Amino acid sequence: MTNKKEIISGIIIIGNEVLSGRTKDINTSTISTWLNSLGIVVKEVRIIPDDKKKIIDTVNAFRKNFNYVFTTGGIGPTHDDITAESISEAFNMEYGFHKEAFSILEKYYNPGEFTEGRQKMSKMPIKAKLIINPTSGAPGFYVENVFCLPGVPSILKSMLGGLNNCLVGGDPVISETLNLKTVESEIAKSLSDVQKLNREVEIGSYPFFRAGKLGVSIVLRSTNQNKIDECNDQILKFVKAKDIEILREE
Amino acid sequence: MTNKKEIISGIIIIGNEVLSGRTKDINTSTISTWLNSLGIVVKEVRIIPDDKKKIIDTVNAFRKNFNYVFTTGGIGPTHDDITAESISEAFNMEYGFHKEAFSILEKYYNPGEFTEGRQKMSKMPIKAKLIINPTSGAPGFYVENVFCLPGVPSILKSMLGGLNNCLVGGDPVISETLNLKTVESEIAKSLSDVQKLNREVEIGSYPFFRAGKLGVSIVLRSTNQNKIDECNDQILKFVKAKDIEILREE
Repeated sequence: MTNKKEIISGIIIIGNEVLSGRTKDINTSTISTWLNSLGIVVKEVRIIPDDKKKIIDTVNAFRKNFNYVFTTGGIGPTHDDITAESISEAFNMEYGFHKEAFSILEKYYNPGEFTEGRQKMSKMPIKAKLIINPTSGAPGFYVENVFCLPGVPSILKSMLGGLNNCLVGGDPVISETLNLKTVESEIAKSLSDVQKLNREVEIGSYPFFRAGKLGVSIVLRSTNQNKIDECNDQILKFVKAKDIEILREE
Repeated sequence: MTNKKEIISGIIIIGNEVLSGRTKDINTSTISTWLNSLGIVVKEVRIIPDDKKKIIDTVNAFRKNFNYVFTTGGIGPTHDDITAESISEAFNMEYGFHKEAFSILEKYYNPGEFTEGRQKMSKMPIKAKLIINPTSGAPGFYVENVFCLPGVPSILKSMLGGLNNCLVGGDPVISETLNLKTVESEIAKSLSDVQKLNREVEIGSYPFFRAGKLGVSIVLRSTNQNKIDECNDQILKFVKAKDIEILREE
């Protein structure tokens, strides 16, 4: 839907473990939900392998197309962690020990425990800005509009709050859900008519089958609460006319 | 890693509900795990909005780059289900009622219940081949190397088996996992040395923190069991030398 102040973003999930199906990606959902609250819309997500050229190409495409880009994964100390190096190349910026990151990690570890392996976690584009990691020391970083976060969901989640002041959002997107005891084909025509009358609200329809219940979730999304309310009233009208039961929860 | 017989694929997840964070994508993991068993490697996943131009562009890029392409979502009866129409345009193929799909759905519903809304589910590229849906009637379809599946995970899962004979796979990828009670920085150097000696095995390193346990999963992936065994032996050697505990499960 059109939104004059729309601020858009893309997410790049870096990791063979997600592509192989071994790990289910939950970082997209975490980042998207957080961005929504800041009024930033996620337009595309790509899951790509630990491959330097692929990372560079994807980052370069995304940073031109979106206001903000977030990467997850590949910033640890092992051989398959190549995100920091790839970002340096994408920005044509020197890759090396980042003074501030080195100092943070040096303080984080006990004397004698700041080994070579751990030092690698302070290697990144040397002019990057840091994203503080309150959970496990090793910081993330950002260069211009590209923000690089770790892949471990709990650590990633703990780092997002620190970024709130770095991002300029648009109008927050409000989302409301109506759960109906029906099937999609029963309401498709009426819902389509409501969508045509309400261009400023994005209406999504999602069937569900769970816990023995069958139904459809209607999700209304807009930056304008009044428009959502109008749309909701029109839907309730046909729901009542068709004698469809409203489910209290999914 | 190089694999002469590598058969590659891409997955396109179509749906605003995944981009907004409302729905966590689990179809990628389901499809990837199934493809692995057939010797087909997933090289990239894109999550894109319910936007016709974006769907067409992504499908056209993927079908040239990959042996197989899978889409999920957007083949239901509501206004936001635009995958079938978009695929028709991508292939420049007429979009309309698919005879066989129409006939399947007509038999599936009781007389008088095959409403206009339900009939829409038989609209697709008219020369598409069908993917049988054992769960809820409405079939998926494929055109050349692009396979279109529904977004509801349980239904999607039930449809994959029917495709086994349509796909020509490569050597199945074998995956083995070793869980160690350590941190990545402790083993980074040794693991990197093993990777250098074993180019035919892809070694992934994934830290985990769960149920009070902290550790690292080492995942070895290759089409060659002997190479995995060799690699595993070399890892066990340094694990023993460093006195690292092997965890029986993650």
